[in-house]
Amino acid sequence: MKIDLLDTLREKNPIAFNISNFVTVQDVANGINALGASPIMSEEQNEAEAMVKMCNSVTINLGAFTEPQLEQIAMVCAFANKEKKPIVVDPVAVGAVEYRTERCNELLDQIDVAVIRGNVGEIAALADVEWNSKGIDAGEGSGDREEIAKKLAKKRSCVVVESGKTDIITDGEAVVRIFNETDLFKLHVGSGDMLSSTIGCFCGVESDAFEAAQTATAVFDVAGELVAKSMKQPLAGSFGPQLIDELHLIDVKTVEKWAEYE
Amino acid sequence: MKIDLLDTLREKNPIAFNISNFVTVQDVANGINALGASPIMSEEQNEAEAMVKMCNSVTINLGAFTEPQLEQIAMVCAFANKEKKPIVVDPVAVGAVEYRTERCNELLDQIDVAVIRGNVGEIAALADVEWNSKGIDAGEGSGDREEIAKKLAKKRSCVVVESGKTDIITDGEAVVRIFNETDLFKLHVGSGDMLSSTIGCFCGVESDAFEAAQTATAVFDVAGELVAKSMKQPLAGSFGPQLIDELHLIDVKTVEKWAEYE
Amino acid sequence: MKIDLLDTLREKNPIAFNISNFVTVQDVANGINALGASPIMSEEQNEAEAMVKMCNSVTINLGAFTEPQLEQIAMVCAFANKEKKPIVVDPVAVGAVEYRTERCNELLDQIDVAVIRGNVGEIAALADVEWNSKGIDAGEGSGDREEIAKKLAKKRSCVVVESGKTDIITDGEAVVRIFNETDLFKLHVGSGDMLSSTIGCFCGVESDAFEAAQTATAVFDVAGELVAKSMKQPLAGSFGPQLIDELHLIDVKTVEKWAEYE
Repeated sequence: MKIDLLDTLREKNPIAFNISNFVTVQDVANGINALGASPIMSEEQNEAEAMVKMCNSVTINLGAFTEPQLEQIAMVCAFANKEKKPIVVDPVAVGAVEYRTERCNELLDQIDVAVIRGNVGEIAALADVEWNSKGIDAGEGSGDREEIAKKLAKKRSCVVVESGKTDIITDGEAVVRIFNETDLFKLHVGSGDMLSSTIGCFCGVESDAFEAAQTATAVFDVAGELVAKSMKQPLAGSFGPQLIDELHLIDVKTVEKWAEYE
Repeated sequence: MKIDLLDTLREKNPIAFNISNFVTVQDVANGINALGASPIMSEEQNEAEAMVKMCNSVTINLGAFTEPQLEQIAMVCAFANKEKKPIVVDPVAVGAVEYRTERCNELLDQIDVAVIRGNVGEIAALADVEWNSKGIDAGEGSGDREEIAKKLAKKRSCVVVESGKTDIITDGEAVVRIFNETDLFKLHVGSGDMLSSTIGCFCGVESDAFEAAQTATAVFDVAGELVAKSMKQPLAGSFGPQLIDELHLIDVKTVEKWAEYE
Repeated sequence: MKIDLLDTLREKNPIAFNISNFVTVQDVANGINALGASPIMSEEQNEAEAMVKMCNSVTINLGAFTEPQLEQIAMVCAFANKEKKPIVVDPVAVGAVEYRTERCNELLDQIDVAVIRGNVGEIAALADVEWNSKGIDAGEGSGDREEIAKKLAKKRSCVVVESGKTDIITDGEAVVRIFNETDLFKLHVGSGDMLSSTIGCFCGVESDAFEAAQTATAVFDVAGELVAKSMKQPLAGSFGPQLIDELHLIDVKTVEKWAEYE
């Protein structure tokens, strides 16, 4: 794993264009800004091309879209493909709502994505595997999580990051498992969104999306675990700002010391 | 007061559909997620029915709506009535702006609500009682706060929670007063919104809206008071994350110990 | 510098109407609420006139607008000019995106503004000076920062606050420089937005916009610097809530003691 991509990111300070979820946008912007990227958000079609040309990567969060936003998202993705800027997609609550699954699949049919990141319920829905999602949560199902991730990666020819107790990262063939974890990620609503945008930042400085996704996930997971370890009790609210603190303070040596993966 | 509804909420982990105020949505989502519910937000009409079917309750925050959103709100409320999912309405700044009062009354004419929660300025406006509201704040007026709350509860055949130094909860006949309080609630912009959504969560696990509103308000008020007591100075910004911390940590025994009501 | 305007602000509790950036709106609302103003947000044209009549000042943040919002912004500004309510404009990312520069100039051609606040990249773009902006960041350029600020102030007959290591405030002739500073402002995404809205609050209680802008900037910069000094390490995430804490706790004496300006 190329953990020193963290240094590269801070040196290059990539512009990360985010079409974000209005629920968590503030945390996401602060998280990736603290990490070392330069976030930019926009919902306006007239500046879509300029934003894409300016940025190093695009992260599309489908957490709370409306029909007009979907049009803008499709336009941004088309420009991103044309300009060869990597796209990360976070299919929030896909699986729980049929409409979201359909719209997300329509989008993925039209564009090339570098990375899809979601929980197992979301990944299963896009991989055509049955799963019982629950709202924004993963829900419960049977089935091999790794096989589900691989199936989607092959279907969409992209890297898949499947979040859970263990984070699974696959390009469809190889699989990397990251074991760093804390329950506080689930207690903090924006954690998944922030991870997706963090992957976007690393894709902006590393053309190999599989490598970028691994490093991003490792940095993010270790940061969260270190914050959790520093707390005597699980502080669901304070975790948010402290995670952003740690995303700024964490360095390559710390990630190397604490990261557990295979 | 059925304080052990807090345990029920955590056991059932209700899906709380929120049409929220973009100003405070992140705090609200984190607050009710930390408490033990599963928040879901959407502004898209095409998934309104699916969201309503999936959820256990609907909370409508009128803090910052536009005309297209009002259409979606009316649609969501119609589905919620049809599906017998309880609706909580927060009429933010109604009273201060005539347009908001009109639109809110139009909405309330069309639907059955379980609970309306607001400050005395907002409640007075909906109860046709004169009051001098000031923007998002309660403003000043004369008149018996309990009578105003009762009047609206009778007019709309619902439970009314009127926030203030004392929180007044009434079904139009019986009145419960909760005395736990801190000035920090007013210093933190999302407090009222978060209380409304907390009431929504409890309505998702308890069909008696009067009981649900009481427990929700007691849990929320005690949590806020405990955070305030732990501070040497009033920390208006840190109160936000710490209130979310406490909403996760608080348990039935703690609420029973500290709740002051009659 | 009239630092005791801070007492006036708290006494008068002005209603600050903000057309805000969805990325940072929650922080901005909490910041100015903690400071002592009463924030109100709205994106709906039907209540634009009522909101303007009710408020003491209008702050327009162009951080993430769409075409329909621009219409509402133009309408709000027209009402504000008619009602003689001061307007503060924050031209976020103007300069980095040509479309934004054009739209912002169109708006400024139609209305009278009291204050424009931005980083040097944004101010330079509006002053027709070449500069190499980078997304939401100032970027790099050569040229005299004070001359750029003065040029825009003269062009638009307004006060300009140009943020940077030194904050430059000018009415086109006189220049005030504020030296209080911390790198944490750049690490926290909403800092500039919050400063602009703070200026809006002071413009709501002081008709001399040059005085209002100076006091607002001094209070804000000293608050940020004091928070930074209290930290052993730069905590990019905790800085947000702690800055809001300090905006509430800070008083005239503290600002007088620490403010460095000429």
